[in-house]
Amino acid sequence: MKFSDIGEFGFIDSIKGQFDIPMEGVIKGIGDDCAVLSTTLDRVLLFTTDMLVQDIHFMIERISYYQLGRKAIAVNLSDIAAMGGRPLAALISIAIPVETEVEAIHELCRGMRDICRQYNLAIGGGDTVASPDKLVINVAVAGEAKKSEVLYRSGACPGDMIYLTGPVGDSAAGLKILKNEITPPEVMRDYFIKAHNDPAPLVEIGEIIAASGLASAMIDLSDGLLSDLGHICEESKAGALLLAEKIPISPELTLLGDSTGLNPLELALSGGEDYQLLFTVPMEPEQGIDKLFKDHDLPAPHHIGEIGQGSGIRMKRADGSFAELQPMGFDHFNRSQR
Amino acid sequence: MKFSDIGEFGFIDSIKGQFDIPMEGVIKGIGDDCAVLSTTLDRVLLFTTDMLVQDIHFMIERISYYQLGRKAIAVNLSDIAAMGGRPLAALISIAIPVETEVEAIHELCRGMRDICRQYNLAIGGGDTVASPDKLVINVAVAGEAKKSEVLYRSGACPGDMIYLTGPVGDSAAGLKILKNEITPPEVMRDYFIKAHNDPAPLVEIGEIIAASGLASAMIDLSDGLLSDLGHICEESKAGALLLAEKIPISPELTLLGDSTGLNPLELALSGGEDYQLLFTVPMEPEQGIDKLFKDHDLPAPHHIGEIGQGSGIRMKRADGSFAELQPMGFDHFNRSQR
Repeated sequence: MKFSDIGEFGFIDSIKGQFDIPMEGVIKGIGDDCAVLSTTLDRVLLFTTDMLVQDIHFMIERISYYQLGRKAIAVNLSDIAAMGGRPLAALISIAIPVETEVEAIHELCRGMRDICRQYNLAIGGGDTVASPDKLVINVAVAGEAKKSEVLYRSGACPGDMIYLTGPVGDSAAGLKILKNEITPPEVMRDYFIKAHNDPAPLVEIGEIIAASGLASAMIDLSDGLLSDLGHICEESKAGALLLAEKIPISPELTLLGDSTGLNPLELALSGGEDYQLLFTVPMEPEQGIDKLFKDHDLPAPHHIGEIGQGSGIRMKRADGSFAELQPMGFDHFNRSQR
Repeated sequence: MKFSDIGEFGFIDSIKGQFDIPMEGVIKGIGDDCAVLSTTLDRVLLFTTDMLVQDIHFMIERISYYQLGRKAIAVNLSDIAAMGGRPLAALISIAIPVETEVEAIHELCRGMRDICRQYNLAIGGGDTVASPDKLVINVAVAGEAKKSEVLYRSGACPGDMIYLTGPVGDSAAGLKILKNEITPPEVMRDYFIKAHNDPAPLVEIGEIIAASGLASAMIDLSDGLLSDLGHICEESKAGALLLAEKIPISPELTLLGDSTGLNPLELALSGGEDYQLLFTVPMEPEQGIDKLFKDHDLPAPHHIGEIGQGSGIRMKRADGSFAELQPMGFDHFNRSQR
């Protein structure tokens, strides 16, 4: 059996059992945005990693080395944000094709350094190695959180409201533009490409949500709204109902839809890499979350649906009809998606 | 300027300044076996990573997937050992060529799981991604240590004795055998190949040395004796004198030298990947270290020289003459070494 037959998720399922060994001090191993290890009585260590491979995760013609450096760090910071943690230090491994211009890697490092400064993240070291042909970047980030505040994927309960911090679909539109699948009005080009190439991890917002004690579960949208909400449902053993009208779509994406015939809702549901935070909040005076965001001068989060009994995700359309949705994520091993 | 012109160490020097930003809580950033972050008053977090790239660090015809899995974890455990720490959890990223047999990766994972169990290391998660052609494995390991016990590369002082935990050169001999550069007596073949493909990280010994308070500096031998002792000298702003006769060489390597004409001392000085620990001990009743090892039923360490004033490494030969040695490490970007 080839890897292309089984795919990433199939493979992970096939090894999860032998790797997820209960061990003292490990609060959460495989299966959330970060591993969670207890350190002291009231604090935990968060630990996450992401690998970016040339021609799989990025095409070097479609992103600057500077942006690539930022993004390699950003996707890890987003995982720390998704647990409500504070990032501490990063380890950076880079496999560099020997004929690469040193200046290009200096630009990559400048991007990494800038985003690390921005988020107060230390660079703890790493590994610089040669590569036969492709550029490969692996970043691992350690962070910390109060044990009582960490937000897992598994905490959602039927009745909880589902919130999203901001618009989704812009990154997927940016990717389509970069791949020349669509041509945007020139004035919007940079907006979408930035959304895809230089996403902003919502570390501060994640910490505020976690510290408030108002939320029950949280995840960052890396695979896409349906796929990541699907993770919350699966880990929480619950289902979800989405309200199509409430899913936040940027004015830019609406306009892009008008001018290119793209369906913004489709991109918003299935497009990945927006790095917004999706979180659930037990029923309570609804102003709790709104007030929290207002008190911190943050734009109000979007109430997009609620957690229900059972499993799977349903969506209520604007016309009142319902759709059963398949939580489709991107699988790099899947031939049909390559 | 191409990467092949500047090499790994040249590149690291060129970015070290901008990456090594003093930051609260970071006791040691770039430049030792692990990053060291303070967690509580008396404990620190150790944090290390290593990347293995197919056709650069390993040839899949020369190592089994099972051994490769063990080795990818082992090299990181050795870095934790070199600080005197206890490993806690690993994050594993694997970029897998899509046409790889799933069974091969299961073997890789079985190797990882077995060594993790052996060393009580939790697997905290990771990232499984596709690769266009080469297999790439990145492992990051978090560990912990008592703040007062951590052994840095920078702690050696003139007059300190230099110790080595066991024989060196076997791994380099194993590599030469795997590359068909030499043909060993058949009975020794497995011994050397195991030394290269399945090295044992000395985690327990590292912890014992650190906890004893007897040592002043420590490093694991990944690049080679001269190169790694060179790191100790550089970070400690000191020089070193090696006693050629005292450098431990296995009986097997001596025999291999006899039968193939290889110079065992040369392999012992410049060959990498033995993962023995090299540590320095301030002058004191010499039996301190010997007694420590004896009390723990460990083979006595080898007193191979001492730290001196100045810089650089000199070696006293058996005939009493001296040689100035160049701390040569392996640089994958260096054309002459490929």
